[in-house]
Amino acid sequence: MLINGVPGDHISIHDRGLLYGDGVFRTLRVLGGCIQCWPRHYRKLQQDCAALRITCPEAALLFEELRRLIEQRSDGVAKIIITRGEQSARGYTPVENMTSTRILTFAPSLDCPDRNYSHGVKLRVCDIRLAHQPKLAGIKHLNRLENVLAAAECSDPEIAEGLLLDNFDNVIEGVRSNLFMVRNGELFTPNLSNCGVAGIQRERVIEWAARHGVPCWVRQFGLTELLVADEIFMVNSVIGLWPVRELSGIDWNHHPISMQVQEWLSHAHD
Amino acid sequence: MLINGVPGDHISIHDRGLLYGDGVFRTLRVLGGCIQCWPRHYRKLQQDCAALRITCPEAALLFEELRRLIEQRSDGVAKIIITRGEQSARGYTPVENMTSTRILTFAPSLDCPDRNYSHGVKLRVCDIRLAHQPKLAGIKHLNRLENVLAAAECSDPEIAEGLLLDNFDNVIEGVRSNLFMVRNGELFTPNLSNCGVAGIQRERVIEWAARHGVPCWVRQFGLTELLVADEIFMVNSVIGLWPVRELSGIDWNHHPISMQVQEWLSHAHD
Repeated sequence: MLINGVPGDHISIHDRGLLYGDGVFRTLRVLGGCIQCWPRHYRKLQQDCAALRITCPEAALLFEELRRLIEQRSDGVAKIIITRGEQSARGYTPVENMTSTRILTFAPSLDCPDRNYSHGVKLRVCDIRLAHQPKLAGIKHLNRLENVLAAAECSDPEIAEGLLLDNFDNVIEGVRSNLFMVRNGELFTPNLSNCGVAGIQRERVIEWAARHGVPCWVRQFGLTELLVADEIFMVNSVIGLWPVRELSGIDWNHHPISMQVQEWLSHAHD
Repeated sequence: MLINGVPGDHISIHDRGLLYGDGVFRTLRVLGGCIQCWPRHYRKLQQDCAALRITCPEAALLFEELRRLIEQRSDGVAKIIITRGEQSARGYTPVENMTSTRILTFAPSLDCPDRNYSHGVKLRVCDIRLAHQPKLAGIKHLNRLENVLAAAECSDPEIAEGLLLDNFDNVIEGVRSNLFMVRNGELFTPNLSNCGVAGIQRERVIEWAARHGVPCWVRQFGLTELLVADEIFMVNSVIGLWPVRELSGIDWNHHPISMQVQEWLSHAHD
């Protein structure tokens, strides 16, 4: 663990990350000692910091610290948390240009059954609905109680991921992943302008579609439309791509396009 | 500062309070060495912990630790943060019955102009709207980015507090306070079942009304209705009660009921 470049595992209780969830984070896959998709992760970190007016550390500094953290270790998951920094005065009001806090951690890869990749996973539709907050939508910030409550609903070990809708019955995302559906050879992924986290693997899938001449639509759709999809798949930086095998009593056994995207995501590391 | 009863000012970076804003808090007024409204604060802490299934420390333990913290000091503001605790596994899923983390801090009272109490304050209607999340509404949890963004809109020193509406144009609360309006001798305060924090001073005002035979209605209303109120006032545990003097170009110069409530709140310390 590195806190502002110094080995350690504690932060000040005056840090606004703790006080208000006033910060953003990234979870990065490390394979063979290499951080996957680093430029894209950094760009997203910059965007998220800018949206909240948090000072984003320089790319070179973060990259160097990640290298130190990973050192000899080969595979795992690195996490970067950037908070607005330590509070001097009391209260919600953020001071302009505060020195942000950067927290870097590294952990072994999660064990995840091969079947999740080859046969797909089972989803559960969560009871909790995502609230519409356009000023925070898309940002991977530290206010994650909705995800915590949603994850608590998915304790059944058969359930690999929870599916989140919004208050208007639109499909939005997985608890820790983004969602795509395939219909007649076209891709569809939910519009995240009101809620949800716009992950970088979602961005990569959209680019895959553009490069391969596959139409990809970012728009609203509900569960009814999702359940008649030809394929559904979930993506994030740690798991990669999981096809969906079961949702609301419907089964999917063939995932030809999901598999093409899965292959491409795991080999193209830009 | 006391962390789990031990003097210190740092917490683990694996604490879910930092990782996800997975915790709740209380801000308590200390006057003449006494914690104001302690039983009520503790009851609310218990309710908020229960709503998120966070283990709430025993009242006697917290009270004893607060006493140690306050010691010889007379006036100030104590803060209690209870997080779900330290994460062992990775990910959003909360483990049942985790040992929560308790963080207690004490700070001097804020300087606040006497005029705020005698003549009232100016409010600004914030651009950011509160999102509807019934599963979190009312809880004073650590996911406070909406408040941070709202507070950032109120940097003009003339503005003492920001007024928050929801996405449907309902008046909800102040950035750090609850709101009441007075009309024809009756009180009205927004329904907080979709968003907002249900503070204990709001509860006390509702009780004041009941004891004094003043009708008090908890319901939805918009800005148009608010602006024709006879009086408006804001309450929280640190400031007490501020009448509203100015909002959206409308002025209020007489606050007879606000003043009665202000007097009562500051003298009855249950």
